[in-house]
Amino acid sequence: MRNPTLTIDLNCDVGESFGVYQLGNDEAILPYVSSVNIACGFHAGDPAVMKQTVNLALQHGVAIGAHPGLPDLVGFGRREIIVSPEEAYDMVVYQVGALAGFVKAAGGTLHHVKPHGALYNMAAVNLPLAQAIAEAVHKVNPEAFLYGLAGSALIQAGEQFGLLTANEVFSDRTYQPNGTLTPRRQPNALITEEQVALNQVIQMVKSNTVRAQNGSDIPIKADTICIHGDGAHAAAFAKKINETLQQEKIQIRAATYNRIV
Amino acid sequence: MRNPTLTIDLNCDVGESFGVYQLGNDEAILPYVSSVNIACGFHAGDPAVMKQTVNLALQHGVAIGAHPGLPDLVGFGRREIIVSPEEAYDMVVYQVGALAGFVKAAGGTLHHVKPHGALYNMAAVNLPLAQAIAEAVHKVNPEAFLYGLAGSALIQAGEQFGLLTANEVFSDRTYQPNGTLTPRRQPNALITEEQVALNQVIQMVKSNTVRAQNGSDIPIKADTICIHGDGAHAAAFAKKINETLQQEKIQIRAATYNRIV
Amino acid sequence: MRNPTLTIDLNCDVGESFGVYQLGNDEAILPYVSSVNIACGFHAGDPAVMKQTVNLALQHGVAIGAHPGLPDLVGFGRREIIVSPEEAYDMVVYQVGALAGFVKAAGGTLHHVKPHGALYNMAAVNLPLAQAIAEAVHKVNPEAFLYGLAGSALIQAGEQFGLLTANEVFSDRTYQPNGTLTPRRQPNALITEEQVALNQVIQMVKSNTVRAQNGSDIPIKADTICIHGDGAHAAAFAKKINETLQQEKIQIRAATYNRIV
Amino acid sequence: MRNPTLTIDLNCDVGESFGVYQLGNDEAILPYVSSVNIACGFHAGDPAVMKQTVNLALQHGVAIGAHPGLPDLVGFGRREIIVSPEEAYDMVVYQVGALAGFVKAAGGTLHHVKPHGALYNMAAVNLPLAQAIAEAVHKVNPEAFLYGLAGSALIQAGEQFGLLTANEVFSDRTYQPNGTLTPRRQPNALITEEQVALNQVIQMVKSNTVRAQNGSDIPIKADTICIHGDGAHAAAFAKKINETLQQEKIQIRAATYNRIV
Repeated sequence: MRNPTLTIDLNCDVGESFGVYQLGNDEAILPYVSSVNIACGFHAGDPAVMKQTVNLALQHGVAIGAHPGLPDLVGFGRREIIVSPEEAYDMVVYQVGALAGFVKAAGGTLHHVKPHGALYNMAAVNLPLAQAIAEAVHKVNPEAFLYGLAGSALIQAGEQFGLLTANEVFSDRTYQPNGTLTPRRQPNALITEEQVALNQVIQMVKSNTVRAQNGSDIPIKADTICIHGDGAHAAAFAKKINETLQQEKIQIRAATYNRIV
Repeated sequence: MRNPTLTIDLNCDVGESFGVYQLGNDEAILPYVSSVNIACGFHAGDPAVMKQTVNLALQHGVAIGAHPGLPDLVGFGRREIIVSPEEAYDMVVYQVGALAGFVKAAGGTLHHVKPHGALYNMAAVNLPLAQAIAEAVHKVNPEAFLYGLAGSALIQAGEQFGLLTANEVFSDRTYQPNGTLTPRRQPNALITEEQVALNQVIQMVKSNTVRAQNGSDIPIKADTICIHGDGAHAAAFAKKINETLQQEKIQIRAATYNRIV
Repeated sequence: MRNPTLTIDLNCDVGESFGVYQLGNDEAILPYVSSVNIACGFHAGDPAVMKQTVNLALQHGVAIGAHPGLPDLVGFGRREIIVSPEEAYDMVVYQVGALAGFVKAAGGTLHHVKPHGALYNMAAVNLPLAQAIAEAVHKVNPEAFLYGLAGSALIQAGEQFGLLTANEVFSDRTYQPNGTLTPRRQPNALITEEQVALNQVIQMVKSNTVRAQNGSDIPIKADTICIHGDGAHAAAFAKKINETLQQEKIQIRAATYNRIV
Repeated sequence: MRNPTLTIDLNCDVGESFGVYQLGNDEAILPYVSSVNIACGFHAGDPAVMKQTVNLALQHGVAIGAHPGLPDLVGFGRREIIVSPEEAYDMVVYQVGALAGFVKAAGGTLHHVKPHGALYNMAAVNLPLAQAIAEAVHKVNPEAFLYGLAGSALIQAGEQFGLLTANEVFSDRTYQPNGTLTPRRQPNALITEEQVALNQVIQMVKSNTVRAQNGSDIPIKADTICIHGDGAHAAAFAKKINETLQQEKIQIRAATYNRIV
């Protein structure tokens, strides 16, 4: 009896250009990831960019996700706006619907939804907000995966609504003994050494643990790894992590029902 | 053998409120129309208003249409923006997709698409623009009707893409001998007497003709009549036209494959 | 030797319409107030509305204030956006500058600045944010008054930057023993009886005290009273409060260097 | 008696970044120009960018201009929006006022106003629109120069309102025998050879003529030359034109009352 094959999803935020403004380097990153999160026009992206990015994703055969954000273009969706769960529901239905329009027009399938920026962070810890987002996804596309911070309220809410979920982990962030990310304002929040980041990824995928800041190995569920699309070395690191996973015989593919195939 | 029953659609623009701003009187109008065109957030409407309006339409059992407009909230989509056909395609896919999200979330069906304001007017005379809009509707929802000015380039484009179309006529506008609307800047462009407006509607539905400004009866295809939703007497006139049509044994129903049932 | 005359300012938020959307009833309220706060296009208002409202204010001879808000039209500036002090500085300079353009074009003088909604509330308790706002006003127009919640961080910040300040009080809100407003979510937060509201105003102006929820009279500085401009009875109540103050020989005039003339 | 010194202004559009989106390379261009046109938030720019760009301009000692555009961020103000003269007036007052706020906050002086993109092009040929823009500038800042296409309706309108004007010419565009720019859609509209562009500039400044497409030298008034800020070679070309002018003993300075000093 042969060993099962481990799989992992590599996801990347794309389609973040707007009008004449170019952001990221989607074409360079796409060969190395298995799924993409496409901005929907509230924090980034515009209808033309959404169409082009959907087409690009289909050309590369990667899974297409909607990446809804707060309505804050000038703040890139990174500033918290204190919205009610109902407002969050409405903005997710709107944005997922809009992206689904482009996906349908291109003959593709919407695979998942991953909230962006401040909406993602708020949904990680605010269960009523997370439930509103999960309900929106469930109502618009009950077969879509919900991507959220590993072990967060958003994952919990997705499960409550019967959605398939993907726990997202980070290669370049350190973890606390309680499983949360080290806040960015603290020292050692970021992993800057490439080999350390790669090692963390391999450990998370292979053993479902991560070495916390205090040196202990704690459990973590890793369904999908966030690959950053901007920055000078983004594509190079995406390539590196992709190659490293393949060398470890870990299959790179979008989130599916069962990660061990 | 009994006589066939004539049918006509009464449509109204709704869902034009935005945030704290209230516009129109959707609840008062909806009992008298058979289909509604819901603003999609570009020229009016917001996600919360779209959700509420979709629900209201479902409660009244009227056919739901998307009402995409130019991205010009301050100008209410009434100012021409010189967009390329591709830009028009993109903005229609986006807006129709967004509204379709709310329709799906509410368990309804998207019945039609009717462009708004300046986009409607430009598409009536600009065939490449009209074709881009028709293609967008066809790609996102090939079963949706395309509503456009009777006999216009938009109707022509819809037919080219195999869409079902609905020729829209007006009760309160006069027509030129060549079948076009009398421009608003000309005297006699508007019909202000209620009985004249009602007579025009009955003639258009029963005989597929309209009395032009020069007194001649010219052919016009009337699949749907635009009912204005704002103004002090909007609901009263909607009620009046609804009752008059019923007295004339004309069935009021959303556009279907065959208007004679 | 004659008694000095007490004065008080009555201010009202105006210019909150946007495009085709009408809000408030500025013309009905303006005869009864001495100063107005004009929305600047971020949470409400647009360039056309700003121009018209400035002209209206000049016709009525009321003091003109800028009413900058958070960039959130759909939320009417009432939702907190977690902005940095620098972002607050920038958005206040921008909006005050824009309104000052219309004031200058109309030959008027900018008299004051009062932040709107969530920005007002955040600035009442967040001193660094309040300082950024005060600095913005000071840099753009050092002679402008800064209107803020009586005794709040915003008033404190204004004084730190050498601005003239106006402590704002409310006729229709109850106060806690510590001088803060009773939060809206608590019972008895609002004063709904007209005579109670009028009595509170007279007491605040005449004795610089307010009867707190526990029945004790606590000190409060009252330079300006907020008059609400929307709601069915807004103009009627504005008229009533105006008349009551005149009966009490209290002069109604915009904030000046010395309230006792 | 010594010869008078010829002067010319080199202007560049700057401050076109928005939020996280970077555009242009303002720091590299600024050493070579004498005046800048700063976007005001409608077609590009945001309050933070405006503040930073004003500061940058002051550091380089260049003249600061407002660069108002149509409200169309996604189209970068390049798409015509059919606005009324009154709407143009309002949007210019708003934007010039907003920029003037930052200029005042930084202790600088607003030197000029140059409309952007489609607004610039429409104002070049539409006199009522041009007059509305000129009136707006005159009302907000009667001492500001109005920059417009050389010999256009905008220059004419500026003169009607008693404004100082600066006729703008282009180094990289060819001219028709009637003095208008060759439309971009025609062949030979653009000058791609650097030396030809430089020669055209020298001729325009020295002899107030330009060689038209048919080979004839036609009169043109050249007060300011537009330097493009984007593109890979923008800064290099700015440096080259700057050096060439200096070699020709032509002084580079912002538009003033008298170009021969």
